[in-house]
Amino acid sequence: MRLSARLLAASALALSLAAPAFAQDAATIQRAETIRDAAMEQNIALDYVTQLTTRFGPRPAGSPSEQAAAAWAADYMRAHGFQNVRIEEFPLVGWERGEESAAIIGPRPQPLVVAALGHSPGTNGVIEAEVVRFTSLEDLNAAPAGSLAGKIAFVDAGQMIRMQDGAGYGPLTRIRSAGPGAAASKGAVAFIMRSVGSDEHRMPHTGTTRYIDGRVPLPGFALSAPDADQVSRLIEMGETVRLSLSSTAHTYETVSQNVVGEITGRTRPDEVIVLGSHMDSWDLGTGAIDDGAGGGITLAAAKAIAESGRRPARTIRVVLYGSEEVDQPNNTGNGGGAYLRGIGAAVDKHIIAGESDFGADRVFALGLPPGAQGSDFAKIAARVLYPIGVLPSQDPELHGGADIGPLAGAGVPVFGLNQDGTRYFDLHHTADDTLDKIDPAQMSQNVAAWAALVYLIADSDVDFRAMRPATAAAH
Amino acid sequence: MRLSARLLAASALALSLAAPAFAQDAATIQRAETIRDAAMEQNIALDYVTQLTTRFGPRPAGSPSEQAAAAWAADYMRAHGFQNVRIEEFPLVGWERGEESAAIIGPRPQPLVVAALGHSPGTNGVIEAEVVRFTSLEDLNAAPAGSLAGKIAFVDAGQMIRMQDGAGYGPLTRIRSAGPGAAASKGAVAFIMRSVGSDEHRMPHTGTTRYIDGRVPLPGFALSAPDADQVSRLIEMGETVRLSLSSTAHTYETVSQNVVGEITGRTRPDEVIVLGSHMDSWDLGTGAIDDGAGGGITLAAAKAIAESGRRPARTIRVVLYGSEEVDQPNNTGNGGGAYLRGIGAAVDKHIIAGESDFGADRVFALGLPPGAQGSDFAKIAARVLYPIGVLPSQDPELHGGADIGPLAGAGVPVFGLNQDGTRYFDLHHTADDTLDKIDPAQMSQNVAAWAALVYLIADSDVDFRAMRPATAAAH
Repeated sequence: MRLSARLLAASALALSLAAPAFAQDAATIQRAETIRDAAMEQNIALDYVTQLTTRFGPRPAGSPSEQAAAAWAADYMRAHGFQNVRIEEFPLVGWERGEESAAIIGPRPQPLVVAALGHSPGTNGVIEAEVVRFTSLEDLNAAPAGSLAGKIAFVDAGQMIRMQDGAGYGPLTRIRSAGPGAAASKGAVAFIMRSVGSDEHRMPHTGTTRYIDGRVPLPGFALSAPDADQVSRLIEMGETVRLSLSSTAHTYETVSQNVVGEITGRTRPDEVIVLGSHMDSWDLGTGAIDDGAGGGITLAAAKAIAESGRRPARTIRVVLYGSEEVDQPNNTGNGGGAYLRGIGAAVDKHIIAGESDFGADRVFALGLPPGAQGSDFAKIAARVLYPIGVLPSQDPELHGGADIGPLAGAGVPVFGLNQDGTRYFDLHHTADDTLDKIDPAQMSQNVAAWAALVYLIADSDVDFRAMRPATAAAH
Repeated sequence: MRLSARLLAASALALSLAAPAFAQDAATIQRAETIRDAAMEQNIALDYVTQLTTRFGPRPAGSPSEQAAAAWAADYMRAHGFQNVRIEEFPLVGWERGEESAAIIGPRPQPLVVAALGHSPGTNGVIEAEVVRFTSLEDLNAAPAGSLAGKIAFVDAGQMIRMQDGAGYGPLTRIRSAGPGAAASKGAVAFIMRSVGSDEHRMPHTGTTRYIDGRVPLPGFALSAPDADQVSRLIEMGETVRLSLSSTAHTYETVSQNVVGEITGRTRPDEVIVLGSHMDSWDLGTGAIDDGAGGGITLAAAKAIAESGRRPARTIRVVLYGSEEVDQPNNTGNGGGAYLRGIGAAVDKHIIAGESDFGADRVFALGLPPGAQGSDFAKIAARVLYPIGVLPSQDPELHGGADIGPLAGAGVPVFGLNQDGTRYFDLHHTADDTLDKIDPAQMSQNVAAWAALVYLIADSDVDFRAMRPATAAAH
């Protein structure tokens, strides 16, 4: 965590003064159960993601499609009774894929299925060069200076393992992030890698890569798993493999926007619970699981609470962040950074934040901030969530994803409703991220978990900052 | 069946004179079991398909890649001890995809993933037109004349059901075959359809379509299932959907070839058993399951028999047919027709033929020609195949696929080793038809079934024509 000195002092003070205080009485629990059960039966999550993905298709950050989808989503929020609905613009450097192609040109010609990595520069014509293969980023980093002059660097670190929590993703994204820079430093003319994904389809997974001195240093491409296998096998057969690569990808100045709407608190409207997800998607699919689903789940949860007959004490703020899929320095160009800058000192009144950005499959565990695990609040939440299959998680302190990460960095506690991501990285950042991949029954369970938990927080005075142990706060 | 009068007379004569005669003594059965078990342990099927698909990639009929792969395969046969290895060329009209693209241009722009149907003409620029949707070929046929003037006809007859025997495929291919002609007859400017396939990936399934008066009458495209869903949903939302379509596909004069090699019979070499599969593939994938696998399975089965220490009495002929994926009038332009024309009167000495063209998953049933079902031969075959999970099938008379179909039409009996096709139509004719989709263990069982059965036929004097009932022969 990156807590400022001021916030550190404030949390220490809160800890010393306030015992955790909240009032989850029997009526509150019963209302949470009613909200939970009603959301299981009927909610707007699938309707939202169906309309969003069908009407607007792909929604790259800063594109006309993302902008139009944001305007539509604001209208959707208003039509469903949200208050203070607003669109908050911010500037960013956008990226457009253009035309791209790749082929093996030797020993014999055959086409390859690739996708340029996000924010890669174009090839400025066709690159034709020999491939040098590495099985790890470390091996690429260890290549002698100049040893890749005129060559294409290829990192194939093997297939991502399919796991419920997506644990295999992080280590492999380092290759995507750092690979182009590492290849450039050895003289390579382009960088290619096995897609970061757990599927075996001809579906390259795109994703953003790191800026160095204001730009991504080299054209970078992801090969689908079968294409990576093909190139690797040819090399293992002793062949010298030459590729052609072309891409007209380019960046441009544009704006993105956060779409914000609230269920305003009944008695303490300045106390805010943020439910985050993102509106932008990669350009290859229609962004159903990444992250139309998150918008649907959080909107549907908030609406289920609003429809329960009594607005909660605190404000529930749904933020459909713009431009999540961008990684530019100092949280510029993304919705999470723009939101944090926009709220200023009100960050102190942000009670907690949660982010739904891992598809639409079922929730299986609840992670609460440090100090809240094992608390009375946690016991009550566990009781309400247990009947739909959600158990307490033993996760260490949560920091959110790219959307609420800046809030977490500014001291806002974070909760996590852990959901089954077993198939998430089969689809993530591919053309296959489409509506049909959403299982409506699992999505409803997901909404029910969010609605019940958020209601319990919103209609109480539980103070997660106050519950945080001093060691965790200083951590 | 299309039996000539001469063949009809010959079969009736054989039936009246000859009781089924063969000599599967205990030693023969034991040898079949030894061959079966050895093939389960080790065979060349996976090596063949690995090298074929890795070295040559896609092998469209008549392409340089198919031609080079054929030359390589002939060498492969020679290196593995096959005799009389030869390449038999024939002319055909080839087809090349070129560049293609499709997008929704209204109500809002978004890209679509499509594949031109095989032998479709190019669009000669970009077609922009409104979509008219039909949910069956019958509905398209019933549209009033001229009602589609300037429009794009779209047939979405729903998703193909996944079945072990691929039963859902046939009815839907009628749409692919007849759709462009039907659309043209109503004035349409292009034809699009939901892919014939059982998967839910962004993977359009290509496939050939019908020539009318020497050409496919209209540009035709398959939309992947999620893309078909997207267009259908927009229409169901009440939107007028306009598309842009472009394709530079074109035909050209070329040659393809059958690759033939034999395990020459020890005592009756003129009696021939044909094991068929095809060398060509669609251009999108590398043709691992369709039909590199079939070549691997049949080559490996013949080699397993040859290695058993005693060549069988009859000749086992492996034919890697060229240009199977082509549907031109009168069996011209495909390897099956060329093979039949090449053998002339020797067709009468073709004992039986089998075709492996349904992937590489496990064999679960054996279908024998009419009259042979329930025979002593069938009982012996069942005994040898039962331990690897193959049961007798109750299929009616078999006619083979496109490769051996012409032989069947000329009176050659056909056997079928039915294999699990549950996932075949997830991959069939898509970019996803790649080596990783082959399960080596299932492929070995498949080879073992072929090797054991073919050995039993080849080292016997079983006469399937003689066993055929008169009614079936006249059928």
